Amino acid sequence: LKEEGTEIQNLKSKASALDVADPLGHFRDRFVVDDLIYLDGNSLGRLPKATAERIREVVEQQWGERVICSWGEGWLDLPQRIGDKIGRLIGAKEGETIAADSTSVNFYKLVHAALSATDGRVVVTNSSNFPSDLYLLQGLGIEIRQIDSESDEAIAAALDDRTALLTLSHVEFKSGLRHDMKRLTDAAHAVGAKVLWDLSHSVGAVPIDIGEADLAVGCTYKYLNGGPGATAFLYVRKDLQEALRSPIQGWFGQQNAFEFGLNYSPAGGIGRFLAGTPPILSLAATEPGIDLLLEAGMDKVGEKAALQTAFLMEVADSLSLEVITPRNPQRRGSHVAIRHEAAWPIAQALIAEKSVVPDFRTPDVLRLGIAPLYTRYADLAEAMKRIAEVIETRVYHAYSSEIGGVT
Amino acid sequence: LKEEGTEIQNLKSKASALDVADPLGHFRDRFVVDDLIYLDGNSLGRLPKATAERIREVVEQQWGERVICSWGEGWLDLPQRIGDKIGRLIGAKEGETIAADSTSVNFYKLVHAALSATDGRVVVTNSSNFPSDLYLLQGLGIEIRQIDSESDEAIAAALDDRTALLTLSHVEFKSGLRHDMKRLTDAAHAVGAKVLWDLSHSVGAVPIDIGEADLAVGCTYKYLNGGPGATAFLYVRKDLQEALRSPIQGWFGQQNAFEFGLNYSPAGGIGRFLAGTPPILSLAATEPGIDLLLEAGMDKVGEKAALQTAFLMEVADSLSLEVITPRNPQRRGSHVAIRHEAAWPIAQALIAEKSVVPDFRTPDVLRLGIAPLYTRYADLAEAMKRIAEVIETRVYHAYSSEIGGVT
Repeated sequence: LKEEGTEIQNLKSKASALDVADPLGHFRDRFVVDDLIYLDGNSLGRLPKATAERIREVVEQQWGERVICSWGEGWLDLPQRIGDKIGRLIGAKEGETIAADSTSVNFYKLVHAALSATDGRVVVTNSSNFPSDLYLLQGLGIEIRQIDSESDEAIAAALDDRTALLTLSHVEFKSGLRHDMKRLTDAAHAVGAKVLWDLSHSVGAVPIDIGEADLAVGCTYKYLNGGPGATAFLYVRKDLQEALRSPIQGWFGQQNAFEFGLNYSPAGGIGRFLAGTPPILSLAATEPGIDLLLEAGMDKVGEKAALQTAFLMEVADSLSLEVITPRNPQRRGSHVAIRHEAAWPIAQALIAEKSVVPDFRTPDVLRLGIAPLYTRYADLAEAMKRIAEVIETRVYHAYSSEIGGVT
Repeated sequence: LKEEGTEIQNLKSKASALDVADPLGHFRDRFVVDDLIYLDGNSLGRLPKATAERIREVVEQQWGERVICSWGEGWLDLPQRIGDKIGRLIGAKEGETIAADSTSVNFYKLVHAALSATDGRVVVTNSSNFPSDLYLLQGLGIEIRQIDSESDEAIAAALDDRTALLTLSHVEFKSGLRHDMKRLTDAAHAVGAKVLWDLSHSVGAVPIDIGEADLAVGCTYKYLNGGPGATAFLYVRKDLQEALRSPIQGWFGQQNAFEFGLNYSPAGGIGRFLAGTPPILSLAATEPGIDLLLEAGMDKVGEKAALQTAFLMEVADSLSLEVITPRNPQRRGSHVAIRHEAAWPIAQALIAEKSVVPDFRTPDVLRLGIAPLYTRYADLAEAMKRIAEVIETRVYHAYSSEIGGVT
């Protein structure tokens, strides 16, 4: 795979043709982009141009000029309003989704609420789930049945009548495997358990039909392009809301909070899952990115994610790289995971010498994240060419194999 | 008290002289201000000019250009770095304070942590505490001894050997009464209880010596001028940190989070009280406001708060208004509470017709918040003149007495 070779020329021509034909290609102009080949949108999405403008407005006009009055002029409704927009990305109905806190805090609230409303005590999950979710479960003093498999079949088989809750990452953060949401939701319901999906690696990346799922949480700083640590979201199916109580009974979850009554009475509907005052800057920042996805349509975004991940895999195969992401596009998200014993130094070399930002996950996974709204096929072709150069020339040997830092 | 009268001229002359002599007067230029007389900084502080600039930098350069790399270039350390700056405002040592989540979530974490580490089950508080704190306690399934008094003596008398925790707002949100922190901390310790102070209405308003207090939480969007819903903080005395565990075991509280180990092991020190990914925009927004207070010095800020609240009270007395805030400046914060049966329509009339933004708290309290860094004596004189006009002319009768909306 050399610059001069026919193979690379073919690859580039193919990429170029795909970009020209891409119905979503024009969305790239709506983001702040540069020459960097950024394949880490699955960790922190890029800045939509409209977001920079929105934040200036929130800070300089709404806060600077209207000060406290802005609470009554839109801020108070933001968690519901943005929540409902996220709801449209995941197939939820109005009033089922709310923007609040961090994914971790939301996960804690919903697991606690679900377990308080049931006799069952066992939570089923898998060891490839995002570690924060595992840590949070460990802090809740419950019995955890953690299976070492990503297979839907094995997970379904781990459910029984002692199971109170099944919780999984819809798309696994390392492998990129996407679970069959309907199948596992049905399997949980069949044993009388609830299911809580962590949508962090699938929302905005692939179409989601939340269907009959009970609970979900997710993050807005990856494929929703909401900005660093942007406000997360949670979903509770309508008919469950009245029966569930957040353990964190803060005033924003109170009915008529501004009456300042002395006794907590949870707000009706999804609002009861709010806790404290929402961080307006980090919350407002999520809206323009969500709007872009709604404008593009998740079906089209998902189609492009399937095509671009397939394109990446094809090149990875031609380089004899070990792809651990499922081949069936219905069973993967929007990133491709490559296992390589030198994944860490390769990632460092790509960043330092090749203007390619991949993602690394310990101990040996190179994650290549695709954000269909701004990733071009040409970027993918060029990135793979540079990855091949780094591996073939062994320049990565100059980088420490000792894993450290943030990636 | 009429425009033409001697009294109002004397008041204005006095205010003008005080402004000229004010050693903090020049700080007003560091904020975005206008003709509005804004006496609601105790609810949402004004925008520091440096904050608008900082947020542009965080959004447009750090997120827009450096994207994921910014995590390693400062974002990861922000909770500790800003936490330590807040620590300097409250007399804490380095490594005792961290910026995180909302005040409500932090309060929940610390109460849960404190009660898990003790056999005692009774939490003592008072009914004038901020309702969110009461709601959170009610959600924790503990015995609450809630006394109907703001008196330090009565509160101390309510402590006994069954008390696990005493928790109070350092400055009461309605009356503005400031508790004797040392006295009540000692009283709690004398019965073997811990104390948790909510500093939301005192931090940045008056000097605080956290002393031997065990735990504290507080808000940054009032006197710290951090912006709407800005990231809150929590404090845990150094020697207690290792024994306490946050119930919300998110990955940002994990030791070496980026190793992605499967088992939770809390970070050493105050970092263990983080939960999920911090909201960088709402967190970074807090720093310039904190820096302004450090630059001014909390002793000077507290002195001015005492003088300006005294000034307000003197005028209120001359108008025969009922001030419910303590007369001893050591026993109050930086707002003056006036009880009036028509407080709500008066507040509405002031906003709609007089360009004065006071704060209202149900059922009958007009709160006049002073932010010593940007409130002028002339503002206070003019505000009181307009309040007198609204009351004397009874224009407030045109406004509904039915309380509603946010204030």
